[in-house]
Amino acid sequence: MKFASKKNLNLKSNKKDGELCLVSPDLKTAISVASIAPNLREALENWEQYLPAFQQAEEKLKSQSSSGFKFDQNEFHSCLPRTWLFADGSAFINHIKLVRKARNAALPETLETVPLMYQAESGEFLDPNSNIPQIDFSHGTDFEAEVGVILDYVPMGTSPTEALKHIKLITIINDVSLRGLIPAELAQGFGFFQSKPNKILAPIAVTPDELGSAWKNGRLHLPLNINFNGEVFGRPQAGEMHFHFGDLISHAAKTRSLAAGTLIGSGTVSNENSKVGCGCIVEKRTIEQIESGAPKTPFMKVGDQVHIWMETPAGQNIFGDIKGSCFQYPGPNAKS
Amino acid sequence: MKFASKKNLNLKSNKKDGELCLVSPDLKTAISVASIAPNLREALENWEQYLPAFQQAEEKLKSQSSSGFKFDQNEFHSCLPRTWLFADGSAFINHIKLVRKARNAALPETLETVPLMYQAESGEFLDPNSNIPQIDFSHGTDFEAEVGVILDYVPMGTSPTEALKHIKLITIINDVSLRGLIPAELAQGFGFFQSKPNKILAPIAVTPDELGSAWKNGRLHLPLNINFNGEVFGRPQAGEMHFHFGDLISHAAKTRSLAAGTLIGSGTVSNENSKVGCGCIVEKRTIEQIESGAPKTPFMKVGDQVHIWMETPAGQNIFGDIKGSCFQYPGPNAKS
Repeated sequence: MKFASKKNLNLKSNKKDGELCLVSPDLKTAISVASIAPNLREALENWEQYLPAFQQAEEKLKSQSSSGFKFDQNEFHSCLPRTWLFADGSAFINHIKLVRKARNAALPETLETVPLMYQAESGEFLDPNSNIPQIDFSHGTDFEAEVGVILDYVPMGTSPTEALKHIKLITIINDVSLRGLIPAELAQGFGFFQSKPNKILAPIAVTPDELGSAWKNGRLHLPLNINFNGEVFGRPQAGEMHFHFGDLISHAAKTRSLAAGTLIGSGTVSNENSKVGCGCIVEKRTIEQIESGAPKTPFMKVGDQVHIWMETPAGQNIFGDIKGSCFQYPGPNAKS
Repeated sequence: MKFASKKNLNLKSNKKDGELCLVSPDLKTAISVASIAPNLREALENWEQYLPAFQQAEEKLKSQSSSGFKFDQNEFHSCLPRTWLFADGSAFINHIKLVRKARNAALPETLETVPLMYQAESGEFLDPNSNIPQIDFSHGTDFEAEVGVILDYVPMGTSPTEALKHIKLITIINDVSLRGLIPAELAQGFGFFQSKPNKILAPIAVTPDELGSAWKNGRLHLPLNINFNGEVFGRPQAGEMHFHFGDLISHAAKTRSLAAGTLIGSGTVSNENSKVGCGCIVEKRTIEQIESGAPKTPFMKVGDQVHIWMETPAGQNIFGDIKGSCFQYPGPNAKS
């Protein structure tokens, strides 16, 4: 099943969570399932209970009865418009090696045994087709193309193997990052905060079965497509994760329970083979520095557009598109 | 006004958010206001709109009409049972100096100009009278007594002065910390995660006017009471913040908007005058180390109890009690 959250100002339930919908496998039609569950986040609190009704609605959608409508992704929020916890891992060790090299920072001794993880903003994911606000060009606005999994309730102390069973949905993420703010922030010793602003999710989250054999060993074995200003920027394989999602979930749940609706991120998809390109600008800059002594690609400027999506081997778009351009944020008092 | 969230398994709205109630100034009676707003977090999305109805209910409560019931804080969740963002500052510089000394860590160069802040768990605040799970004694379970403010929506880029206007409620917090996990976690460079498990809020959050002249310059000028195993542990003045709450909010909102319901923490209340005692064990251990060459007070053991509360100068408990003992967590598969 493919889930999405439609913008709808007439909702009786909280508008910020959107109207829960099911989308057809070809992304052509959708059907509202708001009568079954108030929204996707709360549906995850009682997922098994809601499943039979969702499956019935899915049958209706596939039979193309009159209750479906044309799916236009511009009318949708991020698949999960907001949630309690976004714990973002960094499971592609190649990315860590490159980025730390660029910052002249040492590699952690536990690089291959303990995942890196930080808690990211999750109170408002921007719309998938929304533009990315830039406050100050010196902040070094960058994108990070990631895979994410969405969970039901995970008890504290859950093992990596058990953790895999809590993955109910899979999506893709743009973990927007402000590279210029990271060095000073990390020097303070408390980790990222201002350097990690609001994120963007794809319009669609899918159940693991939708991915067929591409979903195995807690990893999504497909390339992630990243275009920048209409040109190919990267096609890295998302399956090349050092830690799998069960490892990341278990790490997150070591000393806390994870609320239903928790999103776990893979970290920027990054491959050892640099010919596949990159999932973020900072990696490209690092490679340029290594190859030619200086970075060439600037961070995002106003008007620059990033497009992130994933396809089946047959070329079917799976999660819809994350596609937005950088714009100058007019300040807190501007009229919207 | 004093707000609280009652445990109620018969709620039509989401049970995890509790039933919104108003509590009388003397904490003797309460009244349900669930018919006005679904819960405290969502009330903050339209605070000004709900205020007149809350004020009417408050009048009813004060007139002791029959609709009130006896307030028993054991029947209540944390005042805000869960929320989108808990951004925890560290505004008491004395605490930073002592704790870094204990860790042999350098002080950040921006100590007095840029607040330290991390994003804490907020998907489930434990009940105020609930016990604190201990997975492993080597984790070094500690409490941190803090003041917190709860906000309506704050646009990105809001100034410290403007930020003060977004403070709708004030409460107190136990920012449970696992000291034994901090050094290895900070050495990884991504900040706190496993070392900062689920937090606990007081049962009551109050509007600033309830605090009279004790609320001024963005700070709460009253001592915070901390007892450990029934003995006085600390009575530090909460007004001794270096950064005020407007500074902390503005710092949090520099590159993101803050969702309505955001909680901002002061960091452990800590005074330069060590005679007032401490708001957490690690500070006491550091002082012991400085004075006698070695820490004496162990971190929390199973059965140890911490009690955190605040009173008006006349001795009236303001927020109710955060009071819980450490217990051995039985693991993810134990029957509850």
